Amino acid sequence: MKINEKHYHTIWVNENDPKLVEIIDQRYLPFEFKIQELKNIKDAYIAIKDMWVRGAPLIGVTAAYGMYLGLLHLTENENLDNKIKELAQYLESSRPTAVNLEFATGLVLQNIRSAKLLEDKIRIAFETANQLKQNEIENCRLIGENGLQFIEKISQTKKGETVNVLTHCNAGWLACVDYGTATAPIYFAHEKGIKIHVWVDETRPRNQGARLTAFELEQQGIPHTVIADNTGGLLMQKGMVDMVIVGSDRTSANGDVANKIGTYLKALAAHDNNIPFYVALPLSTIDWDMNDGINEIPIEQRNEEEVKYIEGWHNDQITKVRLTPENSPALNYGFDVTPAKYVTALITERGVSKASAGEISKLKEL
Amino acid sequence: MKINEKHYHTIWVNENDPKLVEIIDQRYLPFEFKIQELKNIKDAYIAIKDMWVRGAPLIGVTAAYGMYLGLLHLTENENLDNKIKELAQYLESSRPTAVNLEFATGLVLQNIRSAKLLEDKIRIAFETANQLKQNEIENCRLIGENGLQFIEKISQTKKGETVNVLTHCNAGWLACVDYGTATAPIYFAHEKGIKIHVWVDETRPRNQGARLTAFELEQQGIPHTVIADNTGGLLMQKGMVDMVIVGSDRTSANGDVANKIGTYLKALAAHDNNIPFYVALPLSTIDWDMNDGINEIPIEQRNEEEVKYIEGWHNDQITKVRLTPENSPALNYGFDVTPAKYVTALITERGVSKASAGEISKLKEL
Repeated sequence: MKINEKHYHTIWVNENDPKLVEIIDQRYLPFEFKIQELKNIKDAYIAIKDMWVRGAPLIGVTAAYGMYLGLLHLTENENLDNKIKELAQYLESSRPTAVNLEFATGLVLQNIRSAKLLEDKIRIAFETANQLKQNEIENCRLIGENGLQFIEKISQTKKGETVNVLTHCNAGWLACVDYGTATAPIYFAHEKGIKIHVWVDETRPRNQGARLTAFELEQQGIPHTVIADNTGGLLMQKGMVDMVIVGSDRTSANGDVANKIGTYLKALAAHDNNIPFYVALPLSTIDWDMNDGINEIPIEQRNEEEVKYIEGWHNDQITKVRLTPENSPALNYGFDVTPAKYVTALITERGVSKASAGEISKLKEL
Repeated sequence: MKINEKHYHTIWVNENDPKLVEIIDQRYLPFEFKIQELKNIKDAYIAIKDMWVRGAPLIGVTAAYGMYLGLLHLTENENLDNKIKELAQYLESSRPTAVNLEFATGLVLQNIRSAKLLEDKIRIAFETANQLKQNEIENCRLIGENGLQFIEKISQTKKGETVNVLTHCNAGWLACVDYGTATAPIYFAHEKGIKIHVWVDETRPRNQGARLTAFELEQQGIPHTVIADNTGGLLMQKGMVDMVIVGSDRTSANGDVANKIGTYLKALAAHDNNIPFYVALPLSTIDWDMNDGINEIPIEQRNEEEVKYIEGWHNDQITKVRLTPENSPALNYGFDVTPAKYVTALITERGVSKASAGEISKLKEL
């Protein structure tokens, strides 16, 4: 998608040096646009852990390139298999909730297994990462196509009046490689000339909505309005929201959806006001081995400083201010789990599914 | 209650000059403790409108003193009755949602009506404001006594383990004159030696939870933890919340509760997890003429800057930072309305009531 009218992906291999992976450093958006080089697996680990990159699909792609960068710096020796396993475990430890991490490292491990020589393993890891990146782009494009129908239908029912979509956090192209998951149907609807407006939850504590979703919508010219996370319920009561669409960091096989903390509250409000609540996700986000997301999905607990302090723009620089009394503790969970019963449908690259074990498993078999 | 170990009310008449009303200027808390003088009705109007004082009961008391200050600067003339009405209308226009405003100005108007001389009207307005202040203190004390039972019961059920209470915004003593509404049962439980811990919603956009509730709990030595507004749903799912207690800015006669934006989302989550949801309010907050709060309570819309910017502490001063892209618009509603069906009970100075028209009207008759 576009930044300052130029097309970007969120991650790419340096044109002149294939041993360098480059990313948009999302810590500085929307205030500053910076690109970072990842030179080794530690850079990739930190980029994931400290959220230079975030969003389930992008975390996966970054982890795959991280495996490649890790392999680049190994040497042939008898312990190679163990060393490679350690690379995967190291990356997997960066963030606990996103299932895409393990999916990506697992995919690289599987693909390089049969190669004997380290140089072949490196080449295959590189190709796997490139392929995974292309897959994520294609998945998002298909999610956009599959989700577009819901916006079109509302637009028809409203006789062409503006369709108001509420989204939480950033499940946009900045969370993926291109298009986004939750945003892909929005971008496609806008491209087709459907009148659309997006309510952007600011998404405390890290404000990915206010900082990233608002930024990318603004850069694509999509009408949008930033709201405090507290506001969505009132807007739904007032008939100012036609649909909710969010992404997912992990969805259990029975349809429980782990997503950014606060998603569950919006699902409850949508349910209470008869507003459809969609989850857009690539199938790699589904944890097929897990059948009770509410009790089984691990919820990442992050540093309390993210609640006590916030970053914003002041005097032409990013400035961190304290929001709380100095001695008041804070607690910072990253995700919550929306029970399947509150999810109208899952929108995936293979089509749309009810959020139930029986229906979801059909997608796997397609 | 205490600030730096000294006892304060939120508003008082200057000891040496009865023509001066003083308030704690809540715009600077928890970072700085400042006292402001209100010299005339315009000062009172601005103090309410710009939220130097806030919270339904305190707004009411400030408006009553505002009427007194306004009368002080009138002169005897044939238009006096009209001038006095204008004073009331001016104050009532400062904030639209709190019914206590009209209650307070109406009470002063009623009490001064029979007095012939301006000086008598001034004296009666002064006495009315003082009496209203005393009433609010007494109301909060009684709300505390009446609400204590719910905390005691949970403490007994949990065999003395810590009772976890979630609250939204600030319905503490800083929103009142002393004790608070939602906090009064908490303070009384703590005083009785019941183990209690409070989850404090930060309450964007103006962060009254992070700034004021956390501050006053800390100053009284009550264990508490600040959380992002998005977090309460997860905590309830995890069994980490035993009860929710909030205040109200206006409650309709059928039990619909207008309170700080986001309250409704917490009520939905409490309902979904079988957690009791209490509203603590003085009866002055009930709008007896309104029978459909969801459709009839006017919802204040405030400046979008409160969403786009936030204030915090940086380099030893209050600093405002921008959170959003410069060109992204924002929308800022101040309140939402929680339907009566999600309210477990109303806790008032006259006792506890179900949130239904029939039950609430019994309180009026006591």
